[in-house]
Amino acid sequence: MKFARLGPAGYEQPAVIVKDADGVDQYFSVAALTEDIDGGFLASGGISRARKALESGELPAISAKGLRLGAPVARPGSLVCIGMNYAAHAAESGSAPPQIPVVFLKPSNTVAGPFDAAPIPPSSEKYDWEVELGIVVGKEASYLSSVADAVECIAGYLVANDLSEREYQISGAAGQWTKGKSLPSSTPLGPWLVPADEVDGGALRLRSWVNDEPRQDSNTADLIFDAATLVHHVSQYMLLEPGDIILTGTPEGVALSGRFPYIQPGDVVELEIEGLGRQRQEFYRAAAEGSAPAASVSVGAGKDL
Amino acid sequence: MKFARLGPAGYEQPAVIVKDADGVDQYFSVAALTEDIDGGFLASGGISRARKALESGELPAISAKGLRLGAPVARPGSLVCIGMNYAAHAAESGSAPPQIPVVFLKPSNTVAGPFDAAPIPPSSEKYDWEVELGIVVGKEASYLSSVADAVECIAGYLVANDLSEREYQISGAAGQWTKGKSLPSSTPLGPWLVPADEVDGGALRLRSWVNDEPRQDSNTADLIFDAATLVHHVSQYMLLEPGDIILTGTPEGVALSGRFPYIQPGDVVELEIEGLGRQRQEFYRAAAEGSAPAASVSVGAGKDL
Repeated sequence: MKFARLGPAGYEQPAVIVKDADGVDQYFSVAALTEDIDGGFLASGGISRARKALESGELPAISAKGLRLGAPVARPGSLVCIGMNYAAHAAESGSAPPQIPVVFLKPSNTVAGPFDAAPIPPSSEKYDWEVELGIVVGKEASYLSSVADAVECIAGYLVANDLSEREYQISGAAGQWTKGKSLPSSTPLGPWLVPADEVDGGALRLRSWVNDEPRQDSNTADLIFDAATLVHHVSQYMLLEPGDIILTGTPEGVALSGRFPYIQPGDVVELEIEGLGRQRQEFYRAAAEGSAPAASVSVGAGKDL
Repeated sequence: MKFARLGPAGYEQPAVIVKDADGVDQYFSVAALTEDIDGGFLASGGISRARKALESGELPAISAKGLRLGAPVARPGSLVCIGMNYAAHAAESGSAPPQIPVVFLKPSNTVAGPFDAAPIPPSSEKYDWEVELGIVVGKEASYLSSVADAVECIAGYLVANDLSEREYQISGAAGQWTKGKSLPSSTPLGPWLVPADEVDGGALRLRSWVNDEPRQDSNTADLIFDAATLVHHVSQYMLLEPGDIILTGTPEGVALSGRFPYIQPGDVVELEIEGLGRQRQEFYRAAAEGSAPAASVSVGAGKDL
């Protein structure tokens, strides 16, 4: 069972997806159980309730044809990121592997749908892709005393693109990465939220492509700090709330390495994580002033399912 | 006219405050106009509507006696911070004044009321105060073309304490400040939101005290980058939304300078900005695991008005 949110940006409806006997995805509405796939739903046992309702045949089948897929979780309170969490990516970025997790934040309004057209900032020449395993927090986490406790706080996983403007990130001032990590629509999420008990987040192949050419190809088994270790660590420094998202870092194979060109208007970037689905963005150059903000850009920009 | 939010954390009611003929603050409810002082209220001309309703005598007088003061704005979508924006503070932190604004983020769940008891993290030995002028965004701002346009996006100002754990901030990993800037309840805001047309944000004395001893004493005229310049600059890197808050940086006189001890349990920190009011926090040591999160800590911890 996987969760998805269907509809125009800001008006997504919650759904679950299961494969039928022929291996074809079937969609069911969970709107009768919850208004949205959000922190409140996850913290109140929503995943179990949805599974039970699905098994007992209570959920109405729906057609997803022609509907946009939104991010599979509502806008989070916090969008936390981990930097340089694959040794080979740290090396291509010119750094040694970190001894403790590198933590930074993105604004939560950067979240976009997995197939939304994606804006390159007006003056950007170094816009870069980053496929990442995203953790969805299902339970409040503050000063956790053990990594085992952290396991209980993970509701599920999703695919994320942590789009990064390298010029803004690296020369951002005082070494803070924020300016390169905050751009409108710079965090496509999805297509699905897969519950933690249906997938092993620690052994998933993750890949990216630009215009069908391979870029990244690694496995979450190569994470320096795994998902539960990250939740435990981050909880020592901030209050994690249900619905919050932690992006676990990207493997080698980004443009920053110097081996590939940065994203150009018209480029198509695709990201896939084994078991979590595949996302695809076509890039365009955002207009300078009055350029449409994240929400408007993505309305109707969806992929036909 | 000033805005405030009264009541237990999570249940604040919106109000305006005006001085009567004797110079005594009088409180009026604006609950009939809006559910909260938030982005939707500010973006829809809420300040003008409240002023008009107040002048026509439509707003019911209320008593604030015994009620907690919450942050004067609802939890923002983004809580943006500017670093080293006073030359003397950059110097005491061991840095040259920045050539462009230093931008970083705090999680928006760090917002606390201006008089809430304030937790020192369980293992922290370097918890530090920072009085700052806070900008409240009233209008969406994205890739603004001029500083003049940015002026129109400022709804008002407030007092902020950007509480910072220096050990976590400075040795956080890869130079990212996030770990020292994200702790639960680390952003007391208020007591009031003062509309931008009632105060000159560029010429306000700002001060702090610890246990009645003076610490910071400066003026927003000394900001390297002023409020409108900051809104314009930040809008080039992220979509600012109504209700978002930008903290403009702190002047010299923090514990990081080495001239003063860090905050200890039992200490009382007070911050004041001319025309924007005064806040006061009594500090206690947070318990390790199971320590109450921000929201629960602040319930009932208010000051009698």
